[in-house]
Amino acid sequence: MKIIMNVINNGIDAKLFDYLVENIKNTSFYNFLGIELKALGPGTAEFILMNKREHTNIDGVTHGGVIMSLADAAMANAVRTMGSKTSTVDFTTSFLNAAPIGEIIRAEGKIIKRGRRLVFTEGNVYAGDKLVGSHNATFYRFGELNYE
Amino acid sequence: MKIIMNVINNGIDAKLFDYLVENIKNTSFYNFLGIELKALGPGTAEFILMNKREHTNIDGVTHGGVIMSLADAAMANAVRTMGSKTSTVDFTTSFLNAAPIGEIIRAEGKIIKRGRRLVFTEGNVYAGDKLVGSHNATFYRFGELNYE
Amino acid sequence: MKIIMNVINNGIDAKLFDYLVENIKNTSFYNFLGIELKALGPGTAEFILMNKREHTNIDGVTHGGVIMSLADAAMANAVRTMGSKTSTVDFTTSFLNAAPIGEIIRAEGKIIKRGRRLVFTEGNVYAGDKLVGSHNATFYRFGELNYE
Amino acid sequence: MKIIMNVINNGIDAKLFDYLVENIKNTSFYNFLGIELKALGPGTAEFILMNKREHTNIDGVTHGGVIMSLADAAMANAVRTMGSKTSTVDFTTSFLNAAPIGEIIRAEGKIIKRGRRLVFTEGNVYAGDKLVGSHNATFYRFGELNYE
Repeated sequence: MKIIMNVINNGIDAKLFDYLVENIKNTSFYNFLGIELKALGPGTAEFILMNKREHTNIDGVTHGGVIMSLADAAMANAVRTMGSKTSTVDFTTSFLNAAPIGEIIRAEGKIIKRGRRLVFTEGNVYAGDKLVGSHNATFYRFGELNYE
Repeated sequence: MKIIMNVINNGIDAKLFDYLVENIKNTSFYNFLGIELKALGPGTAEFILMNKREHTNIDGVTHGGVIMSLADAAMANAVRTMGSKTSTVDFTTSFLNAAPIGEIIRAEGKIIKRGRRLVFTEGNVYAGDKLVGSHNATFYRFGELNYE
Repeated sequence: MKIIMNVINNGIDAKLFDYLVENIKNTSFYNFLGIELKALGPGTAEFILMNKREHTNIDGVTHGGVIMSLADAAMANAVRTMGSKTSTVDFTTSFLNAAPIGEIIRAEGKIIKRGRRLVFTEGNVYAGDKLVGSHNATFYRFGELNYE
Repeated sequence: MKIIMNVINNGIDAKLFDYLVENIKNTSFYNFLGIELKALGPGTAEFILMNKREHTNIDGVTHGGVIMSLADAAMANAVRTMGSKTSTVDFTTSFLNAAPIGEIIRAEGKIIKRGRRLVFTEGNVYAGDKLVGSHNATFYRFGELNYE
């Protein structure tokens, strides 16, 4: 059961937008974990996840792996809005607050530097208005997406 | 269906070992993702995961979030072998090689410095003999486990 | 020869401000490297450095160690504006652009989460309007400053 | 005044070794900070620094910037033993123990994965037998060194 009905296009090419929306909808791990796309813009992406019992660690709060997975989705797809195929090189996380179950958690990713080969991004994960994770990641561009 | 039949105790207190094995078996996120405990020792932990289609990204290789989740499991439980309750503070990852599906991936975590409050660890994730992820993480000890 | 004549107080207690200004003026490594305080505010700090030949690597651009040192100064002192003694736990850097010699480089540090023991910060280093380094650091509070 | 009289060649091409030794001897920032080369091998480098008052922070221990600078020297030059020009992309540090003044501190860097464009390394900084800093860094190869 999806939470997001309509993904928002904040200003990228319509064909690229459709391609990425379809692409993300067919990403096995996103579906498995419950990661949903909310919005794409030029160099930005927003994803959400409904935080359930299956995401919790032994202390009853969301496992860090869920937070990092959601953040990576937002940051990698921020890079894909450049039309690039990409893979994560380095990924850093600080865990600032716990995310209790039963809440929607939300990740915002954005590009801070576009290089020819390397793209640098930052990402934040929120539970409500609480900052849960602060992230930096570097991506490698290994080709162009065929969306036309 | 479990891969691991018998978890190996590489030398920690038997009561603590039983407590952690039970605790890990009941961790929702580990079960959901298919993370299994292989071994625990003094300041070390080893976990595995059978890499399936549900773990893949759009390029058909294991999503970084799966690698980081498995690594975090190994590193956090390496800290728990001290008898401590703990939560992840900072977590860094370098992705060195892709992990194709259909393989068992394996994470080794170990403590490199035990502080009163902070414990520093490193972790490696392997697919076969290929190094997939190189990780460092810092953990905060917020209490003692009641295992006796 | 100092570049900064008057350090700006963006709103912290006057006694704490004077204490920190004096303290920073007497920090051997800052003087040695040429790191100067520009401004302090509640949870923020700004430092600058005139980028000279002695700071360069073999390719003639500022060595990464200089960038990281300047960023650490800004982030650690952002934490000290809470009145805390502090030490760096984890420090991450992405190098986005090179900083050529003969320019003033500038670091801004700010707190993103204040915990009882751990304080999380982010920092940016600029050469002109170019982002040179993007940083996250976690600090441990080990006591209170005696500034009164 | 140098501490190291003879740099050790642990098995790299003699011309490359001579080139790198000369190159490092002429790196302004290394000379300024007192960073000296101890040994080079295939994918490894070792550097030392005599820890002086000018390297200390306000608490009288070595500033983190000195530790990170020394670690970066070891890790970057481990990459250069491949014959590559290189620049640091991402650099992470955990500070495990303080390094008091008056001691020689030592950094070991080594390659953990050689890619066509990206090279992954790890580094450790020691004061005596105490681990001071644990580091991971990713480097970009932007050309070949002209050492022949």
